[in-house]
Amino acid sequence: MDTNKPIILVTNDDGITAPGIRNLIEAMEGLGTIVVVAPDSPQSGMGHAITIGKPLRMNKVDIFEGIDAYQCSGTPVDCVKLATNQILHRKPDICVSGINHGLNSSINVIYSGTMSAAMEAAIEGVPSVGFSLADFSFEADFSIAKKVARTIVSKMLQKELAPHTLLNVNVPKVTESDFKGIKFCRQANAKWGESFEHRKDPHGKDYYWMVGNFICKDEGTDTDIFALHGGYASVVPVQFDLTDYTMKEKLTADWGSF
Amino acid sequence: MDTNKPIILVTNDDGITAPGIRNLIEAMEGLGTIVVVAPDSPQSGMGHAITIGKPLRMNKVDIFEGIDAYQCSGTPVDCVKLATNQILHRKPDICVSGINHGLNSSINVIYSGTMSAAMEAAIEGVPSVGFSLADFSFEADFSIAKKVARTIVSKMLQKELAPHTLLNVNVPKVTESDFKGIKFCRQANAKWGESFEHRKDPHGKDYYWMVGNFICKDEGTDTDIFALHGGYASVVPVQFDLTDYTMKEKLTADWGSF
Repeated sequence: MDTNKPIILVTNDDGITAPGIRNLIEAMEGLGTIVVVAPDSPQSGMGHAITIGKPLRMNKVDIFEGIDAYQCSGTPVDCVKLATNQILHRKPDICVSGINHGLNSSINVIYSGTMSAAMEAAIEGVPSVGFSLADFSFEADFSIAKKVARTIVSKMLQKELAPHTLLNVNVPKVTESDFKGIKFCRQANAKWGESFEHRKDPHGKDYYWMVGNFICKDEGTDTDIFALHGGYASVVPVQFDLTDYTMKEKLTADWGSF
Repeated sequence: MDTNKPIILVTNDDGITAPGIRNLIEAMEGLGTIVVVAPDSPQSGMGHAITIGKPLRMNKVDIFEGIDAYQCSGTPVDCVKLATNQILHRKPDICVSGINHGLNSSINVIYSGTMSAAMEAAIEGVPSVGFSLADFSFEADFSIAKKVARTIVSKMLQKELAPHTLLNVNVPKVTESDFKGIKFCRQANAKWGESFEHRKDPHGKDYYWMVGNFICKDEGTDTDIFALHGGYASVVPVQFDLTDYTMKEKLTADWGSF
């Protein structure tokens, strides 16, 4: 492994065989020494889950020509922890996660394994970025997303970044001619309105399928959702200090002492 | 179910049979109509994971006298979604999660199923709170944590709260006489320094146990960690807009247009 070049840790949550991660690896070509540590099975919706109480498996796999790649039995966050501690024995210079099959804009940042992997690296002090494309299909066209990923990672490697820098990048499903560029945004205030489809299995027992529909009432023109609708890729800088300082002041004043 | 009183949704991540949730139910006695929807197995470290791609099971169980209780095959977040959509068919008035066996202070908020369940309810516009005790043992003494939970939930039910109010409450392991009270705090800047224990299974294959040690370099006197060390229960108001607005301004200025 050439460690004179920047080390780029690549991971994802769709699993190591997903087209998205292959496209991300291609997008990183020449920018540094690539090391892949990714889940051995799809881990969508795992959020910031970690594996406690059972051990992890990890194996080197030869599926990306000339690139060190490992698959891991755990979650995306586990992969980042294993990469730093068991494979690299040092921090990578940057961690890139994705390209996710499906958007992680707005509130999806908190459910997303893609973003949680990137966040875990950022907590470790590694500038990190998650990429997601507005197309769930395995046959999705990643050409614009690849260009966006290369542009942003190149910038990140050139600039002096705060060690906890973490970017959530989402790319719209548009043709080359309809793609408008890249925009810094805030996370839109939106949520999932779930319903469940209640069924009975062949043995007469109940089960439930979660069926969500995305509800965005945020009409701001500075949100990621607005940018994506306008044909832009959105970049939201993300923090993991979840303290609501405004509410802390308010409650301290309102509630008095206990 | 008496729906004239406030409906208190109780959940957790240690599973419906954990002592912590039973203690939380006892602490809520008389404050409203309690409905329990909790995982049927331990879900520690699940973060904001949701179950996608497989169905959920849910069954009514008779383990808390006089209280409607359901166990669910999914994650803590799944439980909250099922509770609202399939059991209550309305929003509860408050959601309480815990009492977790083990602290969820500082960065643990993002790994914690306890807090993610509460966060899911807050995203739905239900004021919510997660409780955690600094004792992993099943035989932990919950007496102080119960008093803290009752005090805080009583306050929350009395006050006009913003619908997205979300509190992360942690209780130290101290004797009654050493307990100092309850304090509003910010999330301490800390992280887990992981190492892995590398072993071989009886078939000669490698596996890894994650072994973490908590590293807190934040010396602030306004943090949850500081409060807990001083014998206080800590209350951190939590937000789920993860946008780092300061970095958004900085990067927009530094990077120019793309």
